[in-house]
Amino acid sequence: MDSRRQRRMTDDTIQLAHGSGGKKSHELIHQLFLPFFNNPYLNKLNDQAVLNCGGKRLSFSTDTYVVDPIFFPGGNIGELAVNGTVNDVCMCGARPFFLSAGFIIEEGFSIEELRAIVKSMQEAAKRANVLIVTGDVKVVNRGKGDKVFINTTGIGFMEHDLELSSEKLKPGDAVLLSGSIGDHGMAILSLREGLSFETTIKSDTAPLNGLVEEIIKAGGRHVRAMRDPTRGGLAATLNEFAEASKVGIHIMEDSLPVNPAVLGACEILGIDPLYVANEGKLVAVVAPEGEEAVLRAMRAHPLGKETARIGEAGYKNPGMVDMLTKIGGRRIVDMPVGEQLPRIC
Amino acid sequence: MDSRRQRRMTDDTIQLAHGSGGKKSHELIHQLFLPFFNNPYLNKLNDQAVLNCGGKRLSFSTDTYVVDPIFFPGGNIGELAVNGTVNDVCMCGARPFFLSAGFIIEEGFSIEELRAIVKSMQEAAKRANVLIVTGDVKVVNRGKGDKVFINTTGIGFMEHDLELSSEKLKPGDAVLLSGSIGDHGMAILSLREGLSFETTIKSDTAPLNGLVEEIIKAGGRHVRAMRDPTRGGLAATLNEFAEASKVGIHIMEDSLPVNPAVLGACEILGIDPLYVANEGKLVAVVAPEGEEAVLRAMRAHPLGKETARIGEAGYKNPGMVDMLTKIGGRRIVDMPVGEQLPRIC
Repeated sequence: MDSRRQRRMTDDTIQLAHGSGGKKSHELIHQLFLPFFNNPYLNKLNDQAVLNCGGKRLSFSTDTYVVDPIFFPGGNIGELAVNGTVNDVCMCGARPFFLSAGFIIEEGFSIEELRAIVKSMQEAAKRANVLIVTGDVKVVNRGKGDKVFINTTGIGFMEHDLELSSEKLKPGDAVLLSGSIGDHGMAILSLREGLSFETTIKSDTAPLNGLVEEIIKAGGRHVRAMRDPTRGGLAATLNEFAEASKVGIHIMEDSLPVNPAVLGACEILGIDPLYVANEGKLVAVVAPEGEEAVLRAMRAHPLGKETARIGEAGYKNPGMVDMLTKIGGRRIVDMPVGEQLPRIC
Repeated sequence: MDSRRQRRMTDDTIQLAHGSGGKKSHELIHQLFLPFFNNPYLNKLNDQAVLNCGGKRLSFSTDTYVVDPIFFPGGNIGELAVNGTVNDVCMCGARPFFLSAGFIIEEGFSIEELRAIVKSMQEAAKRANVLIVTGDVKVVNRGKGDKVFINTTGIGFMEHDLELSSEKLKPGDAVLLSGSIGDHGMAILSLREGLSFETTIKSDTAPLNGLVEEIIKAGGRHVRAMRDPTRGGLAATLNEFAEASKVGIHIMEDSLPVNPAVLGACEILGIDPLYVANEGKLVAVVAPEGEEAVLRAMRAHPLGKETARIGEAGYKNPGMVDMLTKIGGRRIVDMPVGEQLPRIC
């Protein structure tokens, strides 16, 4: 731990990229936060902590939402805040039950817009079958915030004794993706850039706890790890898995589901959909023995109909992700560098 | 619930006062949030939700910190964020164990200052005997935030079967205050206004879970309710108790501990210390049978040495707070109106 504390950050000030989910986020977490907040729960760097509570296991996760704009095709910041934390809580296999909600509102923000956001939070909570049980509201002076930021923190309970973790991948495991990538990020970006795509690309924000339950039921102890690829996109999630488990991850471009409108917007803006945030998709890594059952279960769920087997873990390039491209080459899919899309969630 | 939903807010936009902890906060919570987030946990409006978790009871509380300035005499925003949520978690009598931390950092913020904040969060967590087990970092563009905002959300466990609540006060109960009022708020305000008091007035930020344990041990089922009087000060806390329990609360100005420097600053700025935020004090309401034991236990604890019996609950003026002034008159201590001190915590 002391040696970690010695390493310095490469910057003196915070850059947008420090919140991107990519390399600079990684550096900030490892060089600044972890050396202080050093404990076995946090050090795992999963999206949630799994805590022991007198024999029961509890999943605990927090996320703050600063998405800009706050209303977008397919949802708004409130719905995103509920779904996003529900998803982080359940990716370890827990069933989410309770959420807190903390608001930072800018002076002058419209009460009608706030009401619309709160209403859709309640609808999202109902859909995900969770209760918002405690909250806090702060107001900051005009120009010291941006309309509204929302923190949600969630609690779930583990109703089985499985231990999913990003460190558990083994060569031979299948990598399953529950549907198309890039929808959320490109919905936000198209709107921000004023592209006409904004009418056709919708955020995929959705609560994935129901799908997770089906995966656990079908795959049981063959499920190694699950994660929802949000900031940093599929590329960041797969790199985190590869690094934590010290395996290579080999994916095939051909197998990646991408909506045509998303692909079009990505091409115009010069963005790789592998790095774009999703808010209603998950990656499940499953041992070969469980692969078929999990694939079947995922495809039978409304939020997993388009599930694809996008690749597998292997011995080659341990700690890295590579992709067989459509034209037959193989390229490294690196951890995202810099920030492509600030304030995407 | 439907009738509640019909009532309208008196404003069209959010004002600083909506975050003050006073009347406008109250309106925002009751007219906008509660009609949607309607459930028995939240509706109690305690500072924490007490949840059932397979036989065990769990305390869950969230708070977002937007204090300005972020460094102040006696502490900084990080220490405040840990202590404040520890205090909210434990006021129901729970023992706090775990915290999450969610950061919103403004682009350009100093990494050295961030390190100092994170370091003092770790020190505060150690002092309060809690672990920061999960976190999130978001970065917003320059001018869309203000240096750093921190959400902390905490989990504690109830190690007894008591049910403390603001609805439980009965006429005859004693109102005990653990020490001087106004220190935190006046430390911030003196600094902001450039008063020379800034050198002598220090924030009282401290974790109160140790004191709470002693109170529970000494008072047991005679302890009706506890709360830390933060935003809105002692006046807001006592009014919330009086309203929830439908009793009058009668306090004596003579018995209120106020540090001379705080009193001086309050007089210069025309502020009533009853309305000023505290961050290391608690109010305990105790049935007569437990009063003496609790008073003794509080005074034996380093954070309760100056505990005072400031008044009692009674039949007169139900739902309201009144005070016998030093000159012998009796005045109503109303819920704070408007915002006296924005961004105090």
